[in-house]
Amino acid sequence: MKTKFNNLAYLGPEGTHSEQACIIYDASANRVPYPSIKDVANSLTRRETDECMVPIENSLGGSINETLDILIYQNNIKIKFELTIPINHYLITKSLVELTEIKHIYSHPQAIAQCKHFISRNLPNAKITASMSTAAAVKQMITSSEYAGAIGTKRSAILNNVVTIRENIQDNKSNSTRFVILSPDDHPFTGDDKTSICFELKNDRPGILYESLGEFASRNINLTKIESRPTGESLGRYMFLIDLIGHRDEEKVKSAINSLKRSSSMFKLFGSYPRFKITAN
Amino acid sequence: MKTKFNNLAYLGPEGTHSEQACIIYDASANRVPYPSIKDVANSLTRRETDECMVPIENSLGGSINETLDILIYQNNIKIKFELTIPINHYLITKSLVELTEIKHIYSHPQAIAQCKHFISRNLPNAKITASMSTAAAVKQMITSSEYAGAIGTKRSAILNNVVTIRENIQDNKSNSTRFVILSPDDHPFTGDDKTSICFELKNDRPGILYESLGEFASRNINLTKIESRPTGESLGRYMFLIDLIGHRDEEKVKSAINSLKRSSSMFKLFGSYPRFKITAN
Repeated sequence: MKTKFNNLAYLGPEGTHSEQACIIYDASANRVPYPSIKDVANSLTRRETDECMVPIENSLGGSINETLDILIYQNNIKIKFELTIPINHYLITKSLVELTEIKHIYSHPQAIAQCKHFISRNLPNAKITASMSTAAAVKQMITSSEYAGAIGTKRSAILNNVVTIRENIQDNKSNSTRFVILSPDDHPFTGDDKTSICFELKNDRPGILYESLGEFASRNINLTKIESRPTGESLGRYMFLIDLIGHRDEEKVKSAINSLKRSSSMFKLFGSYPRFKITAN
Repeated sequence: MKTKFNNLAYLGPEGTHSEQACIIYDASANRVPYPSIKDVANSLTRRETDECMVPIENSLGGSINETLDILIYQNNIKIKFELTIPINHYLITKSLVELTEIKHIYSHPQAIAQCKHFISRNLPNAKITASMSTAAAVKQMITSSEYAGAIGTKRSAILNNVVTIRENIQDNKSNSTRFVILSPDDHPFTGDDKTSICFELKNDRPGILYESLGEFASRNINLTKIESRPTGESLGRYMFLIDLIGHRDEEKVKSAINSLKRSSSMFKLFGSYPRFKITAN
């Protein structure tokens, strides 16, 4: 989809999955990397950028709370778009080498953990060195004096003019991350939308959450995600994060939200946006 | 609490928060470190160890899906105990030095991200090097030829005979992790218990989750956690993870679970265990 904006912030450096998500969203945007999710969001509130791409949920690691915190605690930031991309790890080397020649592996500890079986089966004697990111790993590998490999994205190999000698080396092949575009405004009604909300109920007597969900059930609104999250104020106080099918401009969604607000001590609409459809690779 | 077992598996290496949780749980147990959560659990199913300590939820990072996967997909593993400990990061050096003397910082990328403000305020010019764990960071710092610091646990400083020069340097002071003890059996009734369950509903028509939660609401059973999680089979199929107040041996819990099972295509009881109470520091 094309839009008129120019500056799209993302979690850098270049070559990460976040950058890949940006390219899928709008390849013509001016991509601006930032060192943390918080810095990405701050660039938006300071109007240095027009939109930003942040990860919100990973199929292995669960919700990304740094992003949820921004949606919960910062104002004038809405979800405008969502997309889910597969997380594939590649084994990257300077030139075409045999696996047995590789003496040293560089990557972010999380990527190393996700490729544990591949490493123990194929590179059992390689020395492992941690990197701050998979993109930094490729740069470390390039300056290594030994036969070395990095675990990273295909794009980071392309950016650095090096080669990928194995693909999808992660143990769990169904690893994927859901990204969202944050923007000062959410998305107009399209007819196939999702809405994300967050609320804290006035009291936590048994059944109160049940009654609240009744506002959606009685209106035939389907939920695609529900998550309770400690409020941080005290152990045992929870807020609820819900994704539902429908747009905030639809009557039944409006009416459910209005009813829910009456039993909530805190309510926040994160935004309505088109439901993501998987496209062919 | 003291028990008769001997071997307690945990996510190593020594000096991690997992080891600290083991010491709080039973300081006299024989602690056995393993390199991954999966290896920790495998040691239990292979009967090399009697119990294991694994993280299940972090207040910043959310659910730890590697642990949830074990509970969902492996048999004969139950939750027997829970405890929540604060995650405090320390700045560790070889000897007492001024912050301005530190030229190099070692730590796991996640710990570095969690101490971002402290580093930018106090060590803006220090070189940052990633480590595979906070415990490994302390060892790298010790062998460094420059004035260096590591970000890690207090225990890793003690184990390595080095000093902590700053404490609780993480940006978010309310960072805590909930750990659970996994064991072949769960815990007998104590009178103040929690029960963790997981289920997948037979169909996902609007309102079906609402009806299921009614089984708890109608019996006055309070929930302390609810989380939906993609099943991995297809986008849009969800399983639900619930923690409730009560023990599986209590009549009302038994009856709610039996009703829930009838509308579920999959149901798993993770176990009943004493509800964690915060003790004074």
